[in-house]
Amino acid sequence: MSFMNDHPQTPLLDQVIWPSDLRALKPEQLRQLADELRQEVIAVVGVTGGHLGSGLGVVELTTAIHYVFDTPNDKLIWDVGHQCYPHKILTGRRDRIRTLRQGGGLSGFTKRAESDFDPFGAAHSSTSISAALGFAIANKMQDRPGKGIAVIGDGAMSAGMAYEAMNNAQAAGNRLIVILNDNDMSIAPPVGGLSGYLARLVSSREFLGLRDLAKKLARKLPRPLHNAARKTDEFARGMAMGGTLFEELGFYYVGPIDGHNLDQLIPVLENVRDAAEGPCLVHVVTQKGKGYGPAEAADDKYHGVQKFDVITGTQAKAPPGPPSYTNVFAQALIAEAQRDPAVCAITAAMPSGTGLDKFATAFPDRCFDVGIAEQHAVTFAAGLAAQGMRPFCAIYSTFLQRAYDQVVHDVAIQNLPVRFAIDRAGLVGADGSTHAGSFDVTYLATLPNMVVMAAADEAELVHMTHTAACHDSGPIALRYPRGNGTGVAMPAIPERLDIGKGRIVRDGRQVAILSLGTRLEEALKAAEALEARGLSTTVADLRFAKPLDEAMIRRLLTTHEVAVTIEEGAIGGLGAHVLTLASDLGLIDNGLKLRTLRLPDLFQDQDKPEKQYADARLDADAIIDTVLTALRHNSVGTEARA
Amino acid sequence: MSFMNDHPQTPLLDQVIWPSDLRALKPEQLRQLADELRQEVIAVVGVTGGHLGSGLGVVELTTAIHYVFDTPNDKLIWDVGHQCYPHKILTGRRDRIRTLRQGGGLSGFTKRAESDFDPFGAAHSSTSISAALGFAIANKMQDRPGKGIAVIGDGAMSAGMAYEAMNNAQAAGNRLIVILNDNDMSIAPPVGGLSGYLARLVSSREFLGLRDLAKKLARKLPRPLHNAARKTDEFARGMAMGGTLFEELGFYYVGPIDGHNLDQLIPVLENVRDAAEGPCLVHVVTQKGKGYGPAEAADDKYHGVQKFDVITGTQAKAPPGPPSYTNVFAQALIAEAQRDPAVCAITAAMPSGTGLDKFATAFPDRCFDVGIAEQHAVTFAAGLAAQGMRPFCAIYSTFLQRAYDQVVHDVAIQNLPVRFAIDRAGLVGADGSTHAGSFDVTYLATLPNMVVMAAADEAELVHMTHTAACHDSGPIALRYPRGNGTGVAMPAIPERLDIGKGRIVRDGRQVAILSLGTRLEEALKAAEALEARGLSTTVADLRFAKPLDEAMIRRLLTTHEVAVTIEEGAIGGLGAHVLTLASDLGLIDNGLKLRTLRLPDLFQDQDKPEKQYADARLDADAIIDTVLTALRHNSVGTEARA
Repeated sequence: MSFMNDHPQTPLLDQVIWPSDLRALKPEQLRQLADELRQEVIAVVGVTGGHLGSGLGVVELTTAIHYVFDTPNDKLIWDVGHQCYPHKILTGRRDRIRTLRQGGGLSGFTKRAESDFDPFGAAHSSTSISAALGFAIANKMQDRPGKGIAVIGDGAMSAGMAYEAMNNAQAAGNRLIVILNDNDMSIAPPVGGLSGYLARLVSSREFLGLRDLAKKLARKLPRPLHNAARKTDEFARGMAMGGTLFEELGFYYVGPIDGHNLDQLIPVLENVRDAAEGPCLVHVVTQKGKGYGPAEAADDKYHGVQKFDVITGTQAKAPPGPPSYTNVFAQALIAEAQRDPAVCAITAAMPSGTGLDKFATAFPDRCFDVGIAEQHAVTFAAGLAAQGMRPFCAIYSTFLQRAYDQVVHDVAIQNLPVRFAIDRAGLVGADGSTHAGSFDVTYLATLPNMVVMAAADEAELVHMTHTAACHDSGPIALRYPRGNGTGVAMPAIPERLDIGKGRIVRDGRQVAILSLGTRLEEALKAAEALEARGLSTTVADLRFAKPLDEAMIRRLLTTHEVAVTIEEGAIGGLGAHVLTLASDLGLIDNGLKLRTLRLPDLFQDQDKPEKQYADARLDADAIIDTVLTALRHNSVGTEARA
Repeated sequence: MSFMNDHPQTPLLDQVIWPSDLRALKPEQLRQLADELRQEVIAVVGVTGGHLGSGLGVVELTTAIHYVFDTPNDKLIWDVGHQCYPHKILTGRRDRIRTLRQGGGLSGFTKRAESDFDPFGAAHSSTSISAALGFAIANKMQDRPGKGIAVIGDGAMSAGMAYEAMNNAQAAGNRLIVILNDNDMSIAPPVGGLSGYLARLVSSREFLGLRDLAKKLARKLPRPLHNAARKTDEFARGMAMGGTLFEELGFYYVGPIDGHNLDQLIPVLENVRDAAEGPCLVHVVTQKGKGYGPAEAADDKYHGVQKFDVITGTQAKAPPGPPSYTNVFAQALIAEAQRDPAVCAITAAMPSGTGLDKFATAFPDRCFDVGIAEQHAVTFAAGLAAQGMRPFCAIYSTFLQRAYDQVVHDVAIQNLPVRFAIDRAGLVGADGSTHAGSFDVTYLATLPNMVVMAAADEAELVHMTHTAACHDSGPIALRYPRGNGTGVAMPAIPERLDIGKGRIVRDGRQVAILSLGTRLEEALKAAEALEARGLSTTVADLRFAKPLDEAMIRRLLTTHEVAVTIEEGAIGGLGAHVLTLASDLGLIDNGLKLRTLRLPDLFQDQDKPEKQYADARLDADAIIDTVLTALRHNSVGTEARA
């Protein structure tokens, strides 16, 4: 495939390095600038892959915001941040824009370390209003100028966090502006009462026209001259009579506005900037994928794409290979649901990311997309489980953090059999540290009643899905990584695993590698290499981080000279649990060469996953080094004691 | 103080053991029943202490719900659960009601293990709608009868989780009923846009009277005869024109209703039960502390009380003693704020529980109560920190679980200096497992960039508050328990601690006790006892779970025969980190008698804290046993290897 047009002609954009350059343009030049910016975004993502549709939807909005507001003194926060490519191009980063999402390159999200124009990193949804409030109120307290501006999609508005922030907006006064970017489509089609409400709101009102704009704004945004008390009365009366939901929460609501019409956007934003007396919500309607035919035509509006041919829109295909873990899970869950009518599934706005789109096609009445609402997802699942269903809550590792209290309070304490299908466990490549699934083993395995499994390959994932479906006595989690399986033969019939039992994959005598998850491949590679050096090596796939296979671990630790645990997670997980067990059993009293390989104590930037794991010292080389060093090691402790 | 009237005359209530008995009464008997129930609740809490005001507010509501609905087949879920004492009395538990919150007694919250009438345990706020939805939809999927009924306070409605659930309510159809118990007062006075909205809603409408009730309900709840399509249209039109916030999210809104008037409550609930076609929200207005003069007159409406004299309302005073950790923190923070104008504080609806009420009095403009909204609280703090403030986010350990993703994504990844003041760390006594602060060291210390401290006594807490205020390079947490300090002398000037440095409290040679937090007292007791047995014992207060004092730990482990860590937290915390360090350093290679004392792998029920810690094997006796056993121990591993 040829990648054409990857450097379009952009004479006006070429003059705009910073927002200050943009502000020097005449208003009538902005249309051309936006058009060039759109072509550049298309060309860039054609080369790098990444998030396309959402960036294309906000080309005019990005242009207008930087034109009207005093960024970076006004703090602009893009919710989720994946629509920030046009923003990065306009804020001094165009020279590096073709390094997006690559090792050492620009992040695919906003990032404080990259630019003063990124005041707050956002990659998880619905944080922007809280953060913008923080900036706004800090400025207020310090008597400094500067507003907080949050741009948040309609999908992100379904998260409780956004509502919590709106409920607290009044304290910011007119320093807070929320721009609701309503494209009626977050990643998947919208769900829930709010999205229906927004659709009715837009369809029941006409776009603000230029003619009556000034009048409407004047009414919406009373000027300081007027009597303050009277305005407060009017405001309160308006709400009690039933304003928009946003007005009821204390915002001035302005909208809807056509988000691709700069002649509307600029004056509205100027008026909001200058005239508002309280927090303002500007309701902007945009089209995801706007201005790029193939994206506009696609169901997902090219939300996240591979590199693609700009002319045809054809995306680069992944080379043929084993199925992805996501797909294997989806098929395995469908098979469970065919066997068992109590099996059902919940996703928080990630039907395709979790594979539940396939499940929903097969069992539309047994699949629930609750929107970006992980907290609700988990407790809803707990309710389903309490009433006899067998729910699978399919949430990425990093997003399950959103529902930690619900996992603890509603599931674990009550010992309810909710199944957690945890995709994107471990390092995730181009999405970087915000999306890494680093902590789930630690934060789950510390909980009483919880069972924590990790699949070593796609066949194991099938067994674990079945095991989870069968496990009615309490909560159970299965984790698996982003990407493709190993190509292992798939089982005809899934096996119900014994809870808390590992398996010996390779038998040896001197070195024991205790693996959890898909590092098993590297463990086996390391074992080959160690064997070649004359070190007979056992490889165990522990399968369970909790409960541990105490008998197996005791045997391995007491019959091998050195043992190494390896896991795709941070400190406090498998290695910590194995060490704690060894201590509890007194196995460490008279010497135990036991080492734990885990993610390092830092947040790793995006890169190719294999590079990330090498950097993390979680590959075969690291295992070999660790074993050889341990074998040579005479502990300082012993020396000192002697 | 004498506790009078602790068994009031309750002739009608005496006949009601179960809701079925209640349903056999005539409607005109319910008023008397409610009055007797109220007297019984007052008498019970006079004896046991606990939550009084919220229970008194729902006496009539509890009576009416059990009268109208088919509990336990209809699933009644009390949000937060602390208003459930009247419910427990009416559902077969009156014989044990005077054991409330005591060891081996009834829980102060709803609890599945206690009764079929408690379908879902709730002790954290705002979970009820999600859970009720789960029950409702499970019944729908299984084609069984039974509604889900959530009773949720106006304060709990400020949490994002409740909003997420409301946004998903439509899927339940008429199987979901949400009763909004609006007492305009959660624990503290209400905050935020929603509470203002509810107040306007109530003040702008009259209570539904009996006369026009049927008419209004008929309009609100169209009966099956009518044309379904037309109704849908009307419904949609009603919303686009601006209904209540709840209508906009897809509920039928009924209200406001006087929640103490059984003549209103019963017919409304009957109509909602029989006639609703979609999810219904019944807005009930109640008075916290209703019917008990001293509670009605008190600012906090006797939210949580000690045992008290029923006649006078005088609460039993705690014996004089050292100040509580909460108060010490509050005073220390006020001192920091006096020194530094950038210090500010955030609470999520717990101003008095966290001591921030005192801070707010001293610095009203620098204290933010965001309502029950922990997620927002943390990211708001991150925004404040990013703009130069020094925010202290004061949240109980168990409630910080609500904001885990925000701690990871918005604070730790961005390395922003948010200070987490974590009260109620460790076991908490009468509130039981749902309120225990068991996991924070584990879930925080696994995060890169995070500093985790635990105060050993109230003087340490002062130092740590100061250390946190001074720590601008990244996030820092300080944890401290419920209850009173040790009586240690307080420092005149707080000290800035070296990050990651512990202190030796007592010097010895053979046994080392590595303590984190307030178990230090027990460690010192154990050291005395061990010394008496001829074992020279060192006691270290590590102060930091992260970063560990590597030099000190290395020295202690290599110069003592046996070492024991002790912490008020679950597996994965201090002990796991010390073991991991010992393994990383190779200290375990040639023998290390190192043991970790931690919370057991189960959720402990309520009891006196000292009893809970003894049960958890986290006291001086447990330390002594562990040391003596370790000294005697010849590891099985060594035997097997030999």
